[in-house]
Amino acid sequence: MADRIQPRVLKGFRDILPAAEIERADLQEKITKVYRSFGFVPIDTPVLEYSEILLRKSNGETEKQVFRFEDNGKRDVAMRFDLTVPFARFTAEHESELYFPFKRYHIAKVWRGEKPQAGRYREFMQCDIDTVGSDSAAADFEILSVMKAALAEIGVTDVTIHVNHRGIFNRFLEKLGQSEKSEDILRSVDKLAKIGRDAVRAELVETTGAESCADEILEYIASADDFDATLDKLERMAGGEADDTKRMREIREMMKAAGIDATYVLDPSITRGLDYYTGVVYETFLNGCPEIGSVCSGGRYDNLAGLYTKTKLPGVGASIGLDRLIAGLEKLGKTTKKGSYLDAEIFCMDKSLVVHYQKVAAVLRAKGIAVEVFPEQKKIAQQYAVTDAKCVKWGIIIGTDEAAGNVVTLKKLETREQFPSLTVEQAAEKILSEKN
Amino acid sequence: MADRIQPRVLKGFRDILPAAEIERADLQEKITKVYRSFGFVPIDTPVLEYSEILLRKSNGETEKQVFRFEDNGKRDVAMRFDLTVPFARFTAEHESELYFPFKRYHIAKVWRGEKPQAGRYREFMQCDIDTVGSDSAAADFEILSVMKAALAEIGVTDVTIHVNHRGIFNRFLEKLGQSEKSEDILRSVDKLAKIGRDAVRAELVETTGAESCADEILEYIASADDFDATLDKLERMAGGEADDTKRMREIREMMKAAGIDATYVLDPSITRGLDYYTGVVYETFLNGCPEIGSVCSGGRYDNLAGLYTKTKLPGVGASIGLDRLIAGLEKLGKTTKKGSYLDAEIFCMDKSLVVHYQKVAAVLRAKGIAVEVFPEQKKIAQQYAVTDAKCVKWGIIIGTDEAAGNVVTLKKLETREQFPSLTVEQAAEKILSEKN
Repeated sequence: MADRIQPRVLKGFRDILPAAEIERADLQEKITKVYRSFGFVPIDTPVLEYSEILLRKSNGETEKQVFRFEDNGKRDVAMRFDLTVPFARFTAEHESELYFPFKRYHIAKVWRGEKPQAGRYREFMQCDIDTVGSDSAAADFEILSVMKAALAEIGVTDVTIHVNHRGIFNRFLEKLGQSEKSEDILRSVDKLAKIGRDAVRAELVETTGAESCADEILEYIASADDFDATLDKLERMAGGEADDTKRMREIREMMKAAGIDATYVLDPSITRGLDYYTGVVYETFLNGCPEIGSVCSGGRYDNLAGLYTKTKLPGVGASIGLDRLIAGLEKLGKTTKKGSYLDAEIFCMDKSLVVHYQKVAAVLRAKGIAVEVFPEQKKIAQQYAVTDAKCVKWGIIIGTDEAAGNVVTLKKLETREQFPSLTVEQAAEKILSEKN
Repeated sequence: MADRIQPRVLKGFRDILPAAEIERADLQEKITKVYRSFGFVPIDTPVLEYSEILLRKSNGETEKQVFRFEDNGKRDVAMRFDLTVPFARFTAEHESELYFPFKRYHIAKVWRGEKPQAGRYREFMQCDIDTVGSDSAAADFEILSVMKAALAEIGVTDVTIHVNHRGIFNRFLEKLGQSEKSEDILRSVDKLAKIGRDAVRAELVETTGAESCADEILEYIASADDFDATLDKLERMAGGEADDTKRMREIREMMKAAGIDATYVLDPSITRGLDYYTGVVYETFLNGCPEIGSVCSGGRYDNLAGLYTKTKLPGVGASIGLDRLIAGLEKLGKTTKKGSYLDAEIFCMDKSLVVHYQKVAAVLRAKGIAVEVFPEQKKIAQQYAVTDAKCVKWGIIIGTDEAAGNVVTLKKLETREQFPSLTVEQAAEKILSEKN
């Protein structure tokens, strides 16, 4: 074929090769396991939806980034850019078929045509959980607790979850007479880690028109010694106790009761910018590389599906950005290398024995051993190249003598240690005994 | 908000609610487990690709069905309509990073704008396996063996896998002097189950111009008494032994050696129509409802990635159509109902105890029990509605007396049987002992 096409993927997209995909699958499976163990249930929604459904609430930035087109039926459609908007539509559409509180997880791809840059892709995976239909401290705490448990399950324990409450901040701004400027103020505060205190102060002075206001805001967003001391300070600056501070204290009590309070800090500088959150908000940083940003964020919102139903559904949720998390794990040297799920390889020593090899494989599989038969009598070096790439622990060698005696030679491939003249049953036993 | 949007999905698309999604996840996990145990490794490719890459080899029908558009960067892009074309592009692009034979699985969604009809969706899930880089009977047999094992793992054992070899049929047509009409003949033969023997004969007479040819073809595609007798007949009609019949005999020997030969029939009417297969081909029918069509099909091809690389990569693969398989399981009453992954629910009997409930939940989770805390003190009937929907086995009741005594009442929700005054440890033991 002279007319060959250069194989390539679109800008901002990528293939995932086996070792990396095994790692991704492993993380997803562990996260899923934890989500399930807290009572979250899976749903699925279409990748394509009416643009009207996905984009009505969005700002101009999202519209520019979305993959949107006219389908063959002249419908204006778009690929989902997050899992929250489809979930809101889903909840409204199936309200009568669901029960509340409804706790769902959804681990799936989303698409945004962002400017490609290091570690940023146009197709990426989100791992979302949300509880809707309950405005309670228990639901808030549960999400915070799942976040920690999911990260622990994948071996990430050196982590800090930063928590805040938008309601307390709003009260404080009201007391300061700056409520109507809250959007600009939030936008500036959100940049603290990025542009530094002085630059944020300069912006705040311009926004509020008063140095004293800027300084009060900066004082507000600084953490005190510990969670409780910070909460006391925020309460004081916001004008005293109210539902929001009571809620934070209740959540804190639950953290202590569950013995996980050390993972959380009260960080008044976390606001989640212009997002639709109304209550608790949180971001999660790997202590070893906070610079990659939050790997798990979320918060409480007043009304999930107001665009589609008159039922008011308060909720709380979080999302693990799997791609960013993996970037972090790579930086920390915490990724594992695994080339396959195999326990053993039956090498093809003699092509006249290929039927016998399948028989042995069937016996081993019936005992729960993951095994493949090398399908052709290639040079042994070529066969080893495959078992190396697939990180197979055990080689099974059967030449004509072994086949005649109905035995095998077992070989630990890493050390080249050999165990000759084992029956298939003995070989199976050895493989299983060293499987962890 | 007066300006509400009607929540709805696009024609031919659908949401999956929790009980159905749990079923789907369960099937996928079991199929994945089997694929892995035979040495297949996962990859991932983008949902969106250049239209040129996806569509070059396709026929007009595919082009009409594909979701294709111009992206914001003026690129002509399309959503994948199968997992084979992206795999061919992947293999060519990463040839130097892979090892061969390369065995991959890919379980993912594909999109086709087909006319929506009962059980047909525009977004559906395929579970593909392929082995490329080996033209061997062992590789052919392995795919056939995985198909059976994957279906067995999900409880589908009453199944027949129909196998055939395109090469033998091609030799037969050559002998008949009808090679150049093979496309039309294949198309007719493929319709046997749908339109019946007489209608196929009429088409064949028209195509070949001779009643005797039509009758010979009909004789060829009829099965004899058993696999071996049929193979003898095909060999005879195709002009004697050749590589193709030797291959079929070798595969048959492997089926017998592995003790799984009863599942397979040699069915000369299976051709996979105009697909690119060149060797063995197969289709799989649930014996209880063959009318839903093949739930797992595939075959051997000469050259996977010839459009993108000069390396000739022979391969063999199969694909389970998850949506059709589920439709079949539903018809057979073989689907299971499961509302969540929970073992137990801690009811909220008294809102003053919410912190205590979290403490108990943390202790139970540390013992490996999947448990959720009902987050608010709602009417007990409302709490039961949730545990019913989520099919939770155990209720944990803690009122003020129990909390004071640091005990719980365990309740088997289905039978209402109660086990009062258990310590949390005793309750955990009972829950775990009845978990299968």
